[in-house]
Amino acid sequence: MTPLNAQWRLAARPVGLAKPSDWEYVEEPAPEPGDGQVLVELEYLSLDPAMRGWMNETRSYVPPVGIGEVMRAGGLGRVVDSRTREYAVGDRVSGMFGVQRYAVADAAGVNRVDTTLAPAPVHLGALGMTGLTAYFGLLDIGRPEPGQTVVVSGAAGAVGSVAGQIARIKGCRVVGIAGGPEKCEWLTQELGFDAAVDYKRDDLRAQLREHTPDGVDVYFDNVGGDILNEVLRRLARGARVVICGAISQYNAEQPPHGPANYMQLLVMRASMTGFLVFDFAKRYPEGVAQLAQWLGSGELRAREDVVRGGLDRFPEVFLMLFRGENTGKLVLELTEGAG
Amino acid sequence: MTPLNAQWRLAARPVGLAKPSDWEYVEEPAPEPGDGQVLVELEYLSLDPAMRGWMNETRSYVPPVGIGEVMRAGGLGRVVDSRTREYAVGDRVSGMFGVQRYAVADAAGVNRVDTTLAPAPVHLGALGMTGLTAYFGLLDIGRPEPGQTVVVSGAAGAVGSVAGQIARIKGCRVVGIAGGPEKCEWLTQELGFDAAVDYKRDDLRAQLREHTPDGVDVYFDNVGGDILNEVLRRLARGARVVICGAISQYNAEQPPHGPANYMQLLVMRASMTGFLVFDFAKRYPEGVAQLAQWLGSGELRAREDVVRGGLDRFPEVFLMLFRGENTGKLVLELTEGAG
Repeated sequence: MTPLNAQWRLAARPVGLAKPSDWEYVEEPAPEPGDGQVLVELEYLSLDPAMRGWMNETRSYVPPVGIGEVMRAGGLGRVVDSRTREYAVGDRVSGMFGVQRYAVADAAGVNRVDTTLAPAPVHLGALGMTGLTAYFGLLDIGRPEPGQTVVVSGAAGAVGSVAGQIARIKGCRVVGIAGGPEKCEWLTQELGFDAAVDYKRDDLRAQLREHTPDGVDVYFDNVGGDILNEVLRRLARGARVVICGAISQYNAEQPPHGPANYMQLLVMRASMTGFLVFDFAKRYPEGVAQLAQWLGSGELRAREDVVRGGLDRFPEVFLMLFRGENTGKLVLELTEGAG
Repeated sequence: MTPLNAQWRLAARPVGLAKPSDWEYVEEPAPEPGDGQVLVELEYLSLDPAMRGWMNETRSYVPPVGIGEVMRAGGLGRVVDSRTREYAVGDRVSGMFGVQRYAVADAAGVNRVDTTLAPAPVHLGALGMTGLTAYFGLLDIGRPEPGQTVVVSGAAGAVGSVAGQIARIKGCRVVGIAGGPEKCEWLTQELGFDAAVDYKRDDLRAQLREHTPDGVDVYFDNVGGDILNEVLRRLARGARVVICGAISQYNAEQPPHGPANYMQLLVMRASMTGFLVFDFAKRYPEGVAQLAQWLGSGELRAREDVVRGGLDRFPEVFLMLFRGENTGKLVLELTEGAG
């Protein structure tokens, strides 16, 4: 019996925040896997700020999602049909499965997930691309040294919360920037950040000055905009600015203002470097092993913001990212009680 | 007999372009050198865009020039009185002597100049801080590889013209950005640039696209502003952007717009790095030796825009920098026929 698939397909290029009508909800029979492929029933969908960029037509590091194509997204699910010896029915796997209930994927495009190591949603968060982004971005691009000051924006988000904790594990003084007292308290009370800056208060500059008395050696930026610009004023000599994202700009309808204070890079002999986690693919096993060890020892705490309700809630849940409504990794659960 | 000194002292912090009234012209007897010092009669004054920044009160890599202090500048002159064994009367020396006819300096703060190697003004240009800035900025920060595309802005200026030629010597494809057909022709016809982009035409984007078909591997930026922003759109994967200056912004009365396209750093896994030549002080001898060798072999061509007329013309000649009126190193000659 062929299961019924459901998909969100891109219907229009959004202007500003994506609206439900920018996608089309389609139900049709699930496809059959071909030779060397698996059919996956998705249990969890990874919701990431970068997805907004994939909806634009502009040149980027991956082609835009085409109009009429299934919206691109990472996910995790269970193999329900297999035409390859590498995976058996029942295996849990992750991959770029798209915003749909059932996905056909080449064996080479999926990763086996070991849910005895951590619950499934963690494999989309701290043990997935999210954690790896934090790991390689902070350590390889940011190169923090013990005792240095590391500032992370979007610090209560999926990547930021892991990046800040890794900096703490590495012996740095860590300052997180997040929106609102609850998130800030979570950073300092639960995750061991040395200080938190609430960007929703009107004294961002003063808070940064207070909490970075020796300047900022590494800035891990997930947000761009005014926050990036303010942190540039605080750079220490030789600082490294890691450009991981710019969530404040993804829905801008006008070309954003760039960081006006970029000449602090010259004054402070500093660098600003962009990266993509995909370039570290050969080292994923190293990253996953280290992240798993820190999770196991309790040094690293993973938090997933798992929203229940199924695929039809996708457009609405996606917007939580841009409203600052998630804490930790935002995951949409597609199957009640998938575990 | 004590000679009469003349000085331009900072009188006010300029708003926008510096006006003559932002300095005060003062004549008074030259000071006497103390133990370990020399008295230098200046022959040439180095005019550099960075001097505009030193007039502001804002935090930078050197303290601002104080109100009432002699305007800071590099210069070259002849020792006319010496209280140190290191220098004798008649020696030619360079240093940060300030905008004045006579300067007292510690022996440690002056450099001997060998005018048998090149005429005196060259020691403020291609063999001086200007050439060293191009040398270390391009090679150590830009790290160009043979066959790569290097774009230089302010390419007909003092630093840019040397940076572009070094890139050519290193086997790169070199594109210079300059204002007007004469400067552009000078770059391609005289200095061996592969192409020149005239930013005064209204098709900057199209010109850049035409002349960088494989993208830009190294961008050596002296200007900032719209030109920086446009070049960011052309970055190749792994590109290095070297921030040497931002002359288009130094007289801005409003905070400048930053480079809105900075997220191309992420898309292209690129970096933007600021530097100051002073950090390479230990390697100046290496740089000077290499630059002198290239000058001697004719591979590197130095051009100085030497303006005659003496110290009283300083405020007016200084503005030539910001009006794009100089080609090559702008030098003010203080002594007619100093040679």
